[in-house]
Order: sequence, then structure tokens, then C-alpha cells
Amino acid sequence: MSVAIVGAGPGDPGLVTVRALELVRRCEILVYDRLVSSELVAQAVGATRIARENLTQEEVNDLLVHHGRRGRRVVRLKGGDPFIYGRGSEEVEALTEAGVPHEVVPGLSTLTAIPGLAGIPLTARGVASQLTVITGTSGDGSDLDYDRLAGTPGTLVIFMGLNKLEEIADGLILAGRSVDEPAAVLSRLSLPGAKHRTGTLGTIAGLADGLPSPSVIVIGDVVGVLARAGVRTALRSRPRSLPS
Amino acid sequence: MSVAIVGAGPGDPGLVTVRALELVRRCEILVYDRLVSSELVAQAVGATRIARENLTQEEVNDLLVHHGRRGRRVVRLKGGDPFIYGRGSEEVEALTEAGVPHEVVPGLSTLTAIPGLAGIPLTARGVASQLTVITGTSGDGSDLDYDRLAGTPGTLVIFMGLNKLEEIADGLILAGRSVDEPAAVLSRLSLPGAKHRTGTLGTIAGLADGLPSPSVIVIGDVVGVLARAGVRTALRSRPRSLPS
Repeated sequence: MSVAIVGAGPGDPGLVTVRALELVRRCEILVYDRLVSSELVAQAVGATRIARENLTQEEVNDLLVHHGRRGRRVVRLKGGDPFIYGRGSEEVEALTEAGVPHEVVPGLSTLTAIPGLAGIPLTARGVASQLTVITGTSGDGSDLDYDRLAGTPGTLVIFMGLNKLEEIADGLILAGRSVDEPAAVLSRLSLPGAKHRTGTLGTIAGLADGLPSPSVIVIGDVVGVLARAGVRTALRSRPRSLPS
Repeated sequence: MSVAIVGAGPGDPGLVTVRALELVRRCEILVYDRLVSSELVAQAVGATRIARENLTQEEVNDLLVHHGRRGRRVVRLKGGDPFIYGRGSEEVEALTEAGVPHEVVPGLSTLTAIPGLAGIPLTARGVASQLTVITGTSGDGSDLDYDRLAGTPGTLVIFMGLNKLEEIADGLILAGRSVDEPAAVLSRLSLPGAKHRTGTLGTIAGLADGLPSPSVIVIGDVVGVLARAGVRTALRSRPRSLPS
């Protein structure tokens, strides 16, 4: 397979898949996201390493097609999972249109891994069997549909919502959610400088004030499930090493 | 850490994390789910290997606590991710109540990995920015809330719904969803015998008739995104080998 679109997981290099590590170690061209760990990037010994942050999405697509056409072993290493808020599908479309063979290797999505590291199960028997995931800012800049969201059962996860957290919490409360509903902000989990705050819809915006991005916001009774059981979580703020 | 609650990913041993593989290789006691690959279980050389399928959940909890208290290196290897429809939180609660030190290692959730392997991005710019996940059978046996679900924007993913797919599709159509809305059933993806079917809400139950469990059902425009671009997906039906 010439080009691999690979999920690197949430940051901690120990949470990369065996297949992803193998592809990174063998590649000739590596195009990597900003939040991919330097330990993982360093595994691409001898490869030309290209930081994605200096490129537009179109330039990334062109780069993958260019080297893929020449039969080079290319890895496009993306934070989390390529297909969850990752724009991986745009890269796959570009490769397909150009007739370049490619493979998608799923990675640990921030969606599932980050709450897990914080000791928050997104579903739990008798607590929440439905999960709803949104972004804090809609594509067209319009407000979130708070009436609909407030009536949705189960767990609510919000990506890219830290800057609008006060507005989101107020919107949900005004639409009928309880101010006492458990809420958590998980900031930079699995990355250096990991922090998390746990509170309620009424308090979470104040508690999370000043936390750095990226973050995942979790709202619902699952936030309290393991905390009530006295579980202390070990947030990983220091990456594990990779096997030699 | 005495006991590790570890996600094994969706089946393909290449999709296990580096950290999970390390823990499995070093453990003394391995308690593993039915769908975990035999290649991965075989990595626990010298460990006592216990199949979970012969035990009740309470027996699993007791086993983890028993060996954990004795300071044995225990790995509880679960399909997918421990905290997504995985009952991992019940095991963590039991360990916490017993005062046994433990660690949670997230795994690739079936939720995100399986659609990815089938070439279906769960979110895609301009197509779907919201994701809703439910199970086909509610905990108390009542019907799904089709009116609410039909009005929910974005992608709908259903776990454990294959046996009720006709009822679910009819329920969504009667509540207002279009019979032409794209739908897919991903059966045993990343396991031997992987199959998938793509159709519409009106056709999917017939197309998926007789497919084996476990399966993931995806409903929404994301199903067609990459298919329209001509993407052919390589369903993995044969596990990759693990590094030595």
C-alpha cells in the first residue's frame, strides 16, 4: 500500500497501535499533525518528516498524491482517529480521485480514549446507554440547538467547545437541563500538561476557566459514576516510551 | 500497577495498542473476552489464561480482586474499549471498593474503528458534525424513541441492533426519516468472516438478512461520502501478525 492514513491516538505514544508504529518505522515520507508525540515522529528514522501545521489541507492532499504516485511509502499521521473530526475523508477522496492506492488505519479516538483516561465511562449500565457527540461551533457559525440537546438522554460529549463553555452550559440550563448535572472538562489529556476539572453544569465554566486546548467536555451522570465509587484517576501527563 | 483493564480493539491484532501488547506479554493472569484474537491471547506466554465467557460478571470481578490483592500482574483484556458498552466501569468499581490498585488502558472502540475500516467517516465536513450512538435494545426492554431519533441531525450508530434492524428502520421511516437515507451494516469487521452491506433505510434490513453478529449499523449521509468518491474498501478478514 503506497499511502497510509494513520490514526496516532490521543498523544501518549503507548496508545498508538502496533500497525501504526510498524508503518511509521518503515515509511519514506511522514506528514504529521501538531499534537502527535515527538517520540512517535522520531520513529520514522530516515524518512522525510513534514509538519502538517505549515500546510493547507489542499497542500496536504497534493503532497500525498504526489509521493503516492511515485510509489513512495507515505504515512499521513493524524491525531486521534482519521475519521472522527479528522478530515481524513478529504484525504482519502483526493487519493481515490488520483487513483493512488491507500489504506486507512484507525487510531484511538480522543472521543473514547480521553474520557477513559479520566476514569469516565461514556456508557454505563443503568446510567447512560446513549451517547451524543457534537462540536462547540457549528460549521455555519449558528448557535447549537439547545432545545434538542437538552432533551437528549444519556451522555453528551463536546469537542472544540472550551472557548464557548459558559454559553453552552447556560444554553443547556435555560433549555431545561439541571444546574446540578455532572460535567467535566478534560484538557490536554494524554499530552504534557494534562488537567481535568469536574463539577456541574452550573459550575463547570468557572472551574475550567483558563484551561488550555485541546479539550473534551463530558456532560451527564457518567461523570460521577466512578468518582462516587472513590476511583482516583491517574492522568497521564508524561508519555510512555515505545518498545525498541 | 496490579490489575490492568485493557481494551484489545476490534479484533485485528494489529489494532491493539503498544501498551496493551506490553501488558499482555508481561502478565501472570489473563482474563479475556470471546472476541479477542487468539494471536493476542497467545502473547501471554506463561500466564494463566481464563476465558471470560464461562464466567458471570460477578465472578470476573471476584477473580480480578482475588489475584489483584495478592499482587499478581493481572490483565483483563476486553474487546473494543473498556468504557464503551464494555462494562469496564463495573470492574473498576469492584477493584476500587476492594482497594486494589489498577490502571485503565483505552482500546480502539468498535464504535470508531469499524466504520473506519469500512471507509465510513462518522463525521465529515459539510456532511455530518453530530454523532449519536445507541443500542438496539434498551435496558428495560422498551421501544426506542423513534420520534426523537428521527429528528436528530448527523450520523446515527447502533450497536447490538442486527436482530431488530427491520423494526428500527421501519420505526425511523414512520417517524419521518427518508427511505432513501444511506445505511450500512458492518458485520464482524476486523474479525474472520467480515462482511458489510450498504443500502438505504428502505433496503438495509433485507440486504443484511442473515449476517452474523457482532455488527455495527451506521445510518446517515456519511455512509455514501467515500462510496460516491469511488473508494473501494479493504475489509480485513484475516488478522495481521504481531511483531516478535
